[in-house]
This record gives sequence, structure tokens and C-alpha cells, in this order.
Amino acid sequence: MTRPGFTGSALDRADPIRQDPAALAAARADAGARLLRMDGIDPVVGPDGLLDWGGLDEAPPGAFLALLGLIGGSPRFVALSGIPGGAQRSPLMMELLDAWPPEEAATYAAARSLIDWHARHPFCARCGAETAPIRGGWARSCPRCRTEHFPRVDPVVIMLAEHRGRVLVGRQASWKPGRYSALAGFVEPGESVEEAVARELHEEAGILATDIRYLASQPWPFPSQLMIACVARTANDALTIDRHELDHAMWVDRAGVEAALAKLPGAPFDPPPAYAIAHSLFRMWLDG
Amino acid sequence: MTRPGFTGSALDRADPIRQDPAALAAARADAGARLLRMDGIDPVVGPDGLLDWGGLDEAPPGAFLALLGLIGGSPRFVALSGIPGGAQRSPLMMELLDAWPPEEAATYAAARSLIDWHARHPFCARCGAETAPIRGGWARSCPRCRTEHFPRVDPVVIMLAEHRGRVLVGRQASWKPGRYSALAGFVEPGESVEEAVARELHEEAGILATDIRYLASQPWPFPSQLMIACVARTANDALTIDRHELDHAMWVDRAGVEAALAKLPGAPFDPPPAYAIAHSLFRMWLDG
Ligand SMILES: [Zn+2]
Ligand SMILES: [Zn+2]
Repeated sequence: MTRPGFTGSALDRADPIRQDPAALAAARADAGARLLRMDGIDPVVGPDGLLDWGGLDEAPPGAFLALLGLIGGSPRFVALSGIPGGAQRSPLMMELLDAWPPEEAATYAAARSLIDWHARHPFCARCGAETAPIRGGWARSCPRCRTEHFPRVDPVVIMLAEHRGRVLVGRQASWKPGRYSALAGFVEPGESVEEAVARELHEEAGILATDIRYLASQPWPFPSQLMIACVARTANDALTIDRHELDHAMWVDRAGVEAALAKLPGAPFDPPPAYAIAHSLFRMWLDG
Repeated sequence: MTRPGFTGSALDRADPIRQDPAALAAARADAGARLLRMDGIDPVVGPDGLLDWGGLDEAPPGAFLALLGLIGGSPRFVALSGIPGGAQRSPLMMELLDAWPPEEAATYAAARSLIDWHARHPFCARCGAETAPIRGGWARSCPRCRTEHFPRVDPVVIMLAEHRGRVLVGRQASWKPGRYSALAGFVEPGESVEEAVARELHEEAGILATDIRYLASQPWPFPSQLMIACVARTANDALTIDRHELDHAMWVDRAGVEAALAKLPGAPFDPPPAYAIAHSLFRMWLDG
């Protein structure tokens, strides 16, 4: 099996350092400490085409430095201040993700999701006061009501519905022409993974899942989802499309999925990029 | 396999109604509409020992009524206003959960997590202004910066480490004497399920996971986790316990887990309650 996108980072998250002010200060003072070079929310690309790392003195004055973790024992930071959040992928970002190995994208994913969360959560949701980063950037604390806030990770189910050797692919109206992918949706409070899969398939396509099997997971840093990939056998294949969610959906057989992943002329659809778990899902389904 | 706790609710979440003000008004006006009776964050118990439902006129004046969904076609609401959030289980709640079938607990879980999220998120994390519920209670909107906020679901991995026929159980210092469970921890931004499992086992117990397999999931409404249960084979069994996380941990063989689940005298530990997915994990491990 190929490694899912955004996994395999070399980062050791070094949680004990986050919790210990003295260890954090020592990491900041470490001669081997490095700062992730950023251009807004996008990464700066180094001479090798991968992420670029500079000295901590490159950080904007007064910026909070979040500890991403350790790579090869060297503390790795990213500056939080002055970077706006953003859920959209820039064209540069998409090019990099097409080129990078998953483990490089994974290090960037952790940094990007963390930066974005701070940028979009400067105030206390409980009392409205301005909050400040703590724990090496892995939480924010409210000076007024003392609530601690932790970065959000939103679980999303993404599933390949399967019926008699064919799988269901759908497209959203905003996607580029020809692009289809697996159906997906956010897990809601009070739901299991399996219940969310069944609900989404029923809501979006009117089909009934009979058997749901977990396959793989990966993070998705636009802005901070946990993608949980499943295959679901279905009792029926007559589709009732929710036009608010999907522009079109269709069943595709094995030859069609193979042609799509191989980007053959005449393939029934244009597949999601390799760094999306939907791509891994198609591949795993083909590989049985 | 027994159904995991907090799953199987009869609620149809009826997402299209949430999105449609006219449909929401019709649901409110439906003669069959029912209100979940609550005592603070705890449920009121009906004559049958299950959840109790009253008329919408029982809601406090001016309270926002969140649409939980439909049961048997009847719209089901819960009042959001005036209920404080709370992550702790009351003794009454724990008694009910021991007695209830998972599907009744599941309906309550959806309501509780939703109520709690509103109670703890009245302000906009982006700009600090006071927000108001929208979409039938499944989001909040900021009148100042127009950001929409959605209920949080925090993914948590919970895992049984396995080494040569024995599994690892641990306890936190705050638990009642003798109680042990599977190790668990929050999934962080930029991590897959499998990476979070490996990180937690290494951080908390110093062991290396070699092979990680997903088993099951369930919601946990204290306040709103998605529990993702895995089994992990490990390369070693020498433990290095993180005393900030765990009070004690130990390896237990099959006979020990069987004795614990059966609550036999002399069992090596007191197991988690049946509504916790750790209980299902032990059961699934025993059943192979
Ligand atoms: Zn506050
Ligand atoms: Zn706002």
C-alpha cells in the first residue's frame, strides 16, 4: 500500500517539552533550533524543492514561536504572528503537494493547521476576551475566564460506496470540469464513523449502506481535517442526488477507475490528486 | 459483535430541514413535535426509565429550540438556553448509562454534546462578538464578522497495545481504585489515526507500535469526542510510564481480561463501563 498523503513526518512532537517552560526555553536557545520559512500561509521552498528552514532570528520581532517538535534532535519552530489563516490551496501549494513526498507534506500540514487555527481563533469563545498562545503554541489561554482552548481537528468521513463491482463517484459544482471523487462529510456530535458514513451516503445520494469497513486515515490541512476513509457496500444503486451537495454522481466499474487513475484518454473522470486520501481509497479498492 | 456505546439512535438528523427556514418553522408548528426534557445538562427520566419528551410549550420563554432530528417522523427539539455546559458525568447520568440500551444513550449524546457546545461557545473566536444559533441549532453565526461556527467533534484514539498474547492497560490517578482501561489521547492537527496511536503509546508507555488496526468507533458526549478504537501490535513490552499521564500501567493476559470483564473476584483490574468503547475493545480482542 502506498502511504496516504500528509503522513510520515519526521517530526517528533515532543509533548513533554511543550508542557515545560524550562525545556521550551532551552529549545529556543538551542544552537540547532530552526524556523520554518513561510510566505504567508504558503511555505518557502528551499534549494532542494522541499521545506526551507532558517534561524530563529528570522522571526518577526515579538512573534510567538510555536514548537512544531524535533527533527533529528533539532527543535523546529514556526512563527505564528502576522500570518492570516486560509482554507484555500494556492496554485503554488498544489504544485508543491503534487511533487512532495507525503512525509514532507505532513510536516507542512502540522505547521499550516496550527498557524491557521491561531489566526482564526484569537478570542475566547466562552467569554469574548483576547487569548494568548501557551504550551509552545499548542493551546491558547484566556486571561479573563481561564479557559484553555486547543486546536481543532474536524473528523471527516470519506467513503467509496460499492455495488456489484462498481463504485460511486460524485462531483461538486465548484470543482474543475471532469473531476470526480469519493463522497465525504463531517462527522457530527453524537455520531460514530460508521453512522456518519451511512448518513452521508443516504443524504447525498439516497443509497443505503449495508456494510462499512474502515480503510485508512490522513490529515488534510485545509484547514485541519482528519480524513477517515471507508468502503461501504450498498443495498441499492438507484441514486437520489442532493443537488445542494453534489453536482453529479455516477457508478464507475473497475476498468473505469483504473483508466481514471492512469489518466488515460477517454477515462470516465479526472481523479483527485495523489495527496488526497480519495486517491488512496480508489487505489486500495482496485488492489482489493 | 455488541453494538458500541452511544450508537444506533433512532434520530434521523434531517439535515435538509436545518438548512430551510420554512421547513424549520413547519417542524416547530408540527402537532407531533416533542421537546427533550432536561434537568440542567442531565436528562429527565420518563416512566419507562428512558428519555422523556414533552411539548414545545414547556421550553423556557425565548429559548432557542435546536432540532435534534426526526423520530418516526416526529420533529424532536431540545432547548438550548439556560443550560450550563459540563464535561463531568453526574452519578445519575452514570446510573442511566449503565441501564440504557446504546441507542437511547446515543440520542442523549447528540443532544448533550450540542447543548454543551452552545453553552461553552457563546462568543466568536475570530472577533470576540456575541454569536447566535442558526441552522436549527447546528451552527452559530457572528453578527459582526459573519463567521459561521460549527459544533466541535474532537477525534480521540483509544488503543489496546498487544504483545505476545497480553494487552496493556493503564490507569489515571483520578480514577477510582482498581479501574484500568485502554490508553487514549487526542488526535492532533497534522496526524493520521495511526500516527496518533503510535505517538500516544510511545509518549505514555515508551512502547513502539508495529502494526495498527482500526476496530470500531463511537461518540463520547463528555463533552464531544469521536472515539476511534484500534489494536496495535508492539515491538517491545518494557514500559516507560509518563507519570503526568498515567498513574500505573501493566500487561494483562487473556484470562485476566476475561476475569475483569466478568467482574470475578481476584480479577487483575476493574474494567471500564459497557458504554465506553474501551469495554468493546476488550471484548473484541477476546473474541479475536
Ligand atoms: Zn475567556
Ligand atoms: Zn466574529
